[in-house]
Amino acid sequence: MSKVRVAVFGASGYAGEELLRLLLRHRQAEIVAITSRQNAGKPVSTVFPRFTGLDLSFTAPDVEAIAKSCDAAILALPHGLAAEFAVPLLEAGIKVIDISADFRLRSLDKYRQYYGEHPAPELLSRAVYGLPERYREQLRTADLVACAGCYPTSSILPTAPLLAAGLASPEGVIVSSCSGVSGAGRKVDQAYIFPECNESIRAYSVKGHRHLPEIEQEMAVAAGVPEMAINFIPHLAPLNRGINSTILLNAMPGCTIEKIGEVYERAYGHEQFVRVLPFGRLADTKYVAMTNCCEIGYTLDDHTNRIIITSCIDNLTKGAAGQAIQCMNIRFGLDEAEGLL
Amino acid sequence: MSKVRVAVFGASGYAGEELLRLLLRHRQAEIVAITSRQNAGKPVSTVFPRFTGLDLSFTAPDVEAIAKSCDAAILALPHGLAAEFAVPLLEAGIKVIDISADFRLRSLDKYRQYYGEHPAPELLSRAVYGLPERYREQLRTADLVACAGCYPTSSILPTAPLLAAGLASPEGVIVSSCSGVSGAGRKVDQAYIFPECNESIRAYSVKGHRHLPEIEQEMAVAAGVPEMAINFIPHLAPLNRGINSTILLNAMPGCTIEKIGEVYERAYGHEQFVRVLPFGRLADTKYVAMTNCCEIGYTLDDHTNRIIITSCIDNLTKGAAGQAIQCMNIRFGLDEAEGLL
Amino acid sequence: MSKVRVAVFGASGYAGEELLRLLLRHRQAEIVAITSRQNAGKPVSTVFPRFTGLDLSFTAPDVEAIAKSCDAAILALPHGLAAEFAVPLLEAGIKVIDISADFRLRSLDKYRQYYGEHPAPELLSRAVYGLPERYREQLRTADLVACAGCYPTSSILPTAPLLAAGLASPEGVIVSSCSGVSGAGRKVDQAYIFPECNESIRAYSVKGHRHLPEIEQEMAVAAGVPEMAINFIPHLAPLNRGINSTILLNAMPGCTIEKIGEVYERAYGHEQFVRVLPFGRLADTKYVAMTNCCEIGYTLDDHTNRIIITSCIDNLTKGAAGQAIQCMNIRFGLDEAEGLL
Amino acid sequence: MSKVRVAVFGASGYAGEELLRLLLRHRQAEIVAITSRQNAGKPVSTVFPRFTGLDLSFTAPDVEAIAKSCDAAILALPHGLAAEFAVPLLEAGIKVIDISADFRLRSLDKYRQYYGEHPAPELLSRAVYGLPERYREQLRTADLVACAGCYPTSSILPTAPLLAAGLASPEGVIVSSCSGVSGAGRKVDQAYIFPECNESIRAYSVKGHRHLPEIEQEMAVAAGVPEMAINFIPHLAPLNRGINSTILLNAMPGCTIEKIGEVYERAYGHEQFVRVLPFGRLADTKYVAMTNCCEIGYTLDDHTNRIIITSCIDNLTKGAAGQAIQCMNIRFGLDEAEGLL
Repeated sequence: MSKVRVAVFGASGYAGEELLRLLLRHRQAEIVAITSRQNAGKPVSTVFPRFTGLDLSFTAPDVEAIAKSCDAAILALPHGLAAEFAVPLLEAGIKVIDISADFRLRSLDKYRQYYGEHPAPELLSRAVYGLPERYREQLRTADLVACAGCYPTSSILPTAPLLAAGLASPEGVIVSSCSGVSGAGRKVDQAYIFPECNESIRAYSVKGHRHLPEIEQEMAVAAGVPEMAINFIPHLAPLNRGINSTILLNAMPGCTIEKIGEVYERAYGHEQFVRVLPFGRLADTKYVAMTNCCEIGYTLDDHTNRIIITSCIDNLTKGAAGQAIQCMNIRFGLDEAEGLL
Repeated sequence: MSKVRVAVFGASGYAGEELLRLLLRHRQAEIVAITSRQNAGKPVSTVFPRFTGLDLSFTAPDVEAIAKSCDAAILALPHGLAAEFAVPLLEAGIKVIDISADFRLRSLDKYRQYYGEHPAPELLSRAVYGLPERYREQLRTADLVACAGCYPTSSILPTAPLLAAGLASPEGVIVSSCSGVSGAGRKVDQAYIFPECNESIRAYSVKGHRHLPEIEQEMAVAAGVPEMAINFIPHLAPLNRGINSTILLNAMPGCTIEKIGEVYERAYGHEQFVRVLPFGRLADTKYVAMTNCCEIGYTLDDHTNRIIITSCIDNLTKGAAGQAIQCMNIRFGLDEAEGLL
Repeated sequence: MSKVRVAVFGASGYAGEELLRLLLRHRQAEIVAITSRQNAGKPVSTVFPRFTGLDLSFTAPDVEAIAKSCDAAILALPHGLAAEFAVPLLEAGIKVIDISADFRLRSLDKYRQYYGEHPAPELLSRAVYGLPERYREQLRTADLVACAGCYPTSSILPTAPLLAAGLASPEGVIVSSCSGVSGAGRKVDQAYIFPECNESIRAYSVKGHRHLPEIEQEMAVAAGVPEMAINFIPHLAPLNRGINSTILLNAMPGCTIEKIGEVYERAYGHEQFVRVLPFGRLADTKYVAMTNCCEIGYTLDDHTNRIIITSCIDNLTKGAAGQAIQCMNIRFGLDEAEGLL
Repeated sequence: MSKVRVAVFGASGYAGEELLRLLLRHRQAEIVAITSRQNAGKPVSTVFPRFTGLDLSFTAPDVEAIAKSCDAAILALPHGLAAEFAVPLLEAGIKVIDISADFRLRSLDKYRQYYGEHPAPELLSRAVYGLPERYREQLRTADLVACAGCYPTSSILPTAPLLAAGLASPEGVIVSSCSGVSGAGRKVDQAYIFPECNESIRAYSVKGHRHLPEIEQEMAVAAGVPEMAINFIPHLAPLNRGINSTILLNAMPGCTIEKIGEVYERAYGHEQFVRVLPFGRLADTKYVAMTNCCEIGYTLDDHTNRIIITSCIDNLTKGAAGQAIQCMNIRFGLDEAEGLL
């Protein structure tokens, strides 16, 4: 079988670097272009020194030319810009796998509220949400994949089965997450220099973080309710990679720890990238770093009748680049885990 | 005025080190003994190299002898053991300031449930809870001070005024905290070696942590209800010092952001060690490291009708040694901030 | 071709964990046993939670039984113990790849001086030093491989070609290295708990570290002199993985920066796991983390007539497990990079 | 006695923050102005949130106005700019304590070579090098103090006495230092964002770092030779505060470990801010963090006949702000340790 020819647009950030790391060991994919307006013409090693020796350079994002030689385009562009690239790529028949937030929200209103005007609203209905464990069948034929965000991935995977099974109430959900600093991107800002992050734990955007409507949307789908309102509190923590989400759900009558275990077993027993921990163990970012795995620990607190979940992913892998490749593998009929183990 | 003569029992851990750091610059206190069974006879610098050059050695914890030469005893001993020391010290007329958990819980049943048999239950009723911003008057005459725990300090200070004012419901309270590793003490255990903590965020004891009943007790006192049941989820984060507590409270009808601000102003406007942040700012552990300050940020989420609070302390200072000295200062009629600025 | 059947002895430390990580993705190797006296019978995930779900358990180190089913044994045992295991394994015809220090020193006297009595001195002469870039040919037929230590690998690779080419003097060599804390192993000791390592840089064993005679031996071989005496100063730094060695060499008359570049090109231009950086760039641990690569930067200081080298490896990969697998691949005629890219 | 009225120019960086921290607890100094062109008019807490509640704002650097109300000016300005401010301040009779590099080098040529044109060369001869342990007498009457740099402080203090006593050769000196990231200032640059520094150790400016001529100058003064040429290799390490310098000196004939100890005792036995460690102990940044102390460990390596020294300071305290205040205390006849313990 011939290899999938992949172009990565906007490849000069941390998600771009992780995409390269993963694609370089993917046996059925071939990188045909990596673009960066700012670094066009430069060898990849000038931006990512770990790839010193690799014969690959950034090019300008010439969609028309690149479209002629690729099968799939992975967009690691800022929101807004991603949609602008998606339009001509889709027209040229390229499968688009978007890591940005542009096509994650089904509601145009929510998009406007959290991100501003949408550059290509007509595409919203074509997008499939890129969370394979929830949307695998739709992803097999998707032309436009809207990869799930990092915080949403860590929050939706452990909650959706419980909401769907009626073990947890859609009311009163709380997600409190800590993210490593690579989650802020390769952003040069005083808030992210080492001495401002080291020895620091701080919450931010505690109301209305952009991932909030995405989490609410997918939890509501799982729960089978039209809308949900939850609290999502992100924190910045002094580590490079990893998200730890602690989630509290109100248990519904009849919910037991055994039933939770059974629901998880049914949902994820066969999944390669979701690891539900034996009862009593809690998740830890260090066990998922550099992997595409989501680790889930859980318990039931009789005291308050709440289900307590801890869920960890690597924000750059399962939270971004790894998920994109997993989606690509599904779309192109490859082994879903290729390049990801 | 003559100086307060202080003995520190169990001084070889991180809280002991912080007590020494603070007492050495205290102008009205004098260290008369620091005890450590294991290190008796050794200069303090063999255990804490930062004090190299200081002419001070550990002694065996000979209560009778030490009681003759001190006015106050600060106990940095494990729970259980602290109570055993408190008995003869109190009998000898020494003011006891206990950093352990032995006298924090008013309910003997709760103590048994969380810690085991109590070695000196008859003293429970004599203890005053060592959180000066809540119990200053009682502390002025207390013989036995049960200093508030680190997580409880960070949780109770920001919530008590709101519960007391009826702005927040006693139902459905959630506290999710991250602590630096010094919070585990100077414990030699595989879980705490550097590579197991670095690049790691993990929850632990998510049900029934020993600080849970203490937090519930003091929140219930503030709320004026007999009992409360909350969720308290502690996490270990890769920093040395600092606790960040994110707290969610259900807002009561009529609660507004302005009222919250007014309640805080009344409660803490005059306090030296509580810093309520201007609306819109959130707390950060790095701004309270090595200080006795509790920093509180807050907002009101209309979306879920919850009050969101972020609260930070240094677990070794306001969460342990600093608080002990603040209590001692109050008890001995000294400037409350002496040694702490 | 049938797979190489590998047994890992002493697999419960960080080097063992890294061996498992690498062997699990090796397409021509099969793990037939992992031993741990202490953890015999336990699933690997109880010791290394990241392998949760993997169907593999520790066994007791029953050499006789294991020898029947394996082709190669990788020893991740403490020095002294490794030699005891090597003897019966070699007798049973197993290829032994030893990560310990037992067979690295050719001089029995040096071994005694730095490590104590040698349990199997008769084997010393059979061992090949496991640094493929220097001993590849001998490794092809070696029965006993003494894998190079972590600090030695980072020091010998960048200096050997310059010493051999006569560009650098064997006199006055200085190696100052910083290692991440995983270099201390998974040792439970107060010196390695998080608060003792974080925010700390400290030198240790500045005279007579056990890696000193190993570095001197291999540098002397390269320089073609009977003996060398250098300074090797190791430091502990607050990171998990990585060694950075800064090396100063006295330049010999006629040494130029161009000649250094040419010598490196000849020595390593074709090597997959040595990356000599373009002139002007310096090495960084973060670019070799989780890889089997040694990154080398260099310059020539006219001011003092010294060659300045910075060299980085991942202590667990090129400094231990990766190197072992590279040696194994060579010994068994496999692609040298299998499992390592 | 009336308090020394201090103005801090260029107070918005990390050295400025540390100056504020120290001056606020100084009992004989009063802050009359803190300037920041960029932040003029803003409360100090907007730049340094830890000072929330402090009634102090940045002002524009109006030298003429400020000179009327202050006795001392501490300059925490970039080099070049500092000299421009020093001129009018000195003319107005203000004592100037400069943290920049502008007046550290006695040789105008060296300044030009490393920094460019000097804005006020006529002042060079008036400056006293601000390293109290070496220049205390001159500092008592200095109008212009050129505070020693951070790396130089950590290198000169442990070597000067040995060079002066003839125990160490001025030939072949090597200084290899690791600095925490605050040493780079509060600089917003991709190289200093958290994920680029964490899990990273890297050398930089290994030839011709700007602190090199300063170190060489002061070592030469101590050694009583006209010039010295040394190697100085700085590294960036993942910690906030602290410099660890490992220094190798060639021992002169007759040098013994006892003589080194005696020389240190004579030089520093009475010093409050230099802590020569008992023989066998090595320095650690964590024991000097947030202190004005320089910690020195040493040994003699018979093997190579080199003296090995490890020396640690807090780069922001003894390496910048603390040293400035120590110099100010000396100049104004105050207790040298005021504000620094």
